[in-house]
Amino acid sequence: MTETAPRPTLEAVAARAGVSRATVSRVVNGGDGVREPLVARVRQAVDELGYVPNQAARSLVTRRHDAVAVIIAEPETRVFADPFFALQLRGISKELTAQDNQLVLLLTEGRDDHARVARYLAGGHVDGALVFSLHLDDPLPGLIQGAGVPTVFGGRPGWSDGTRDVVYVDSDNRGGAREAVRLLTGLGRTRIAHISGPLDQTSAADRLDGYRQVVGDTGPHLVVESDFTPGGGERAMRELLDRCPDVDAVFAANDLTASGVLRVLREHGRRVPEDVAVVGFDDMLPVAEQTDPPLTTVRQDIEEMGRIMARLLLRRLDRRGAGEEQGGGVVLPTTLVRRASA
Amino acid sequence: MTETAPRPTLEAVAARAGVSRATVSRVVNGGDGVREPLVARVRQAVDELGYVPNQAARSLVTRRHDAVAVIIAEPETRVFADPFFALQLRGISKELTAQDNQLVLLLTEGRDDHARVARYLAGGHVDGALVFSLHLDDPLPGLIQGAGVPTVFGGRPGWSDGTRDVVYVDSDNRGGAREAVRLLTGLGRTRIAHISGPLDQTSAADRLDGYRQVVGDTGPHLVVESDFTPGGGERAMRELLDRCPDVDAVFAANDLTASGVLRVLREHGRRVPEDVAVVGFDDMLPVAEQTDPPLTTVRQDIEEMGRIMARLLLRRLDRRGAGEEQGGGVVLPTTLVRRASA
Repeated sequence: MTETAPRPTLEAVAARAGVSRATVSRVVNGGDGVREPLVARVRQAVDELGYVPNQAARSLVTRRHDAVAVIIAEPETRVFADPFFALQLRGISKELTAQDNQLVLLLTEGRDDHARVARYLAGGHVDGALVFSLHLDDPLPGLIQGAGVPTVFGGRPGWSDGTRDVVYVDSDNRGGAREAVRLLTGLGRTRIAHISGPLDQTSAADRLDGYRQVVGDTGPHLVVESDFTPGGGERAMRELLDRCPDVDAVFAANDLTASGVLRVLREHGRRVPEDVAVVGFDDMLPVAEQTDPPLTTVRQDIEEMGRIMARLLLRRLDRRGAGEEQGGGVVLPTTLVRRASA
Repeated sequence: MTETAPRPTLEAVAARAGVSRATVSRVVNGGDGVREPLVARVRQAVDELGYVPNQAARSLVTRRHDAVAVIIAEPETRVFADPFFALQLRGISKELTAQDNQLVLLLTEGRDDHARVARYLAGGHVDGALVFSLHLDDPLPGLIQGAGVPTVFGGRPGWSDGTRDVVYVDSDNRGGAREAVRLLTGLGRTRIAHISGPLDQTSAADRLDGYRQVVGDTGPHLVVESDFTPGGGERAMRELLDRCPDVDAVFAANDLTASGVLRVLREHGRRVPEDVAVVGFDDMLPVAEQTDPPLTTVRQDIEEMGRIMARLLLRRLDRRGAGEEQGGGVVLPTTLVRRASA
């Protein structure tokens, strides 16, 4: 170890400027209420001594840790298996880093651990939280509210209709689904099936809604609930071929599901799109381009959703205490991307 | 919101038991120094009132947050692209969850953010840290030491030779590499190349060492430094075919690298293993089984490494203050797994 000069303290700055510790602290941390000549004296003393504010001391004053928790309401195995989460985290990470905030990802083995996550939030270790992939009966939102931590949700929370103070970012799931299904009806398809995501998630429920808005209530033989994974898509497609062997189109709730659908159709000798047209959701790359055939799908900008979530939260934190909190949703548009599968 | 009865407080327990707040706090948090009749009275009052200790209050006494930071010294994009990290995190997550500790993953965009990570650690938000994928010139270990947080490293830290207080978990990288290369010499191969990982990481440097211990200094035309990725493996293999067109075996530093190597050999019409035998490292599934041909490789139990790291750290935290801190490494054995590629 080399010897270094001791770091100048707040006290040293206060002594040199001839003011109190509290005054130095207020000036250094950008607080108001210090008269201009004093501000100038403190700034000069800071410069002369080369004083660097201590992070811990700073957060005592600002009550900010410059850290934001991210909670994905899925077991960590799924977080690392589904590229959707990596993309959303990428957007969040870029935005938080650009504003020098630390991304604190709280991983769990499952829902049983959500009480522990809420305890961590309540412990005052982060300034706010970004929460996504919520399921309807998850106690997490209530626990987070109890912890009193400002939160932005990814995806419209299922219970949020009518509550004004919930802030969320979502894609236009209904509109995107309508566009996908209209493409299929426009191609003259008449037995259009839907393989949905878990219907306790609003993203899945909204896409099913959009499908029904176009084709009406097609009855249970054309709708199979699945789980947003390739394996789930395979199982659902096998069931669908049993229930309705002459199905001529499938709208899959996401691209991973669609990749499983395509595999099963190939196994069964069905040509895509000639016999069965397939449309996905996400435009998840490289998946959507590498399927055989490449996937027609509904594009949502997942990374941008993450970025906007982070931005909304940081803005909310900056304005905290500056007036009434306003809730509401930001809903991003989707785009249909045509490739060979439909 | 439904109305609920107010939670019983520490004061209420103290009043009912006829003892001080401090005594209740000591009993509730498992501290010593309270006489047995008082302990019984406090326990009875806790039961009668249904008192649940407050986490924040508890951590004031125990100075524990029941939270452990995990820092992977790579940009978040790599963390999510390389299944190695997901596996190590899986082991860590299982172990921490089993002991009701929160896994706090601190993600970064790159090395420039490591000072911010250290600030978070110094802020007292976690009890300890697990750090892996360190590179030699990374300031992180020094910053962590400065933050005063007990730490266990994944992989032998490059600077740790001779320092007794560093605790790490590693695989037997040299031994595994020797076994891989001995297999190739045993097959009669005489121009055995090595495509290494980044040589500022001890795992990569140790595997290169093991290679050299068997074949000696083969000279620069048979060793190419790469980056543990499939794309890096492709580039390195192209370079190797330029430098040494009659290469008859490749020991790749990990399975992802080997998958890129196999692709390039196929492109160039080289048969594996007839023309060029290939051995990887990790036994990363499903990668190692799904390559064409399936990969002969050196198995290390990555999930178990994560689990042991977490276990060592928690044990260290439990013993804190109980005596001298002992450093040292736990080195796990590797196993050669034979498949078709060698």
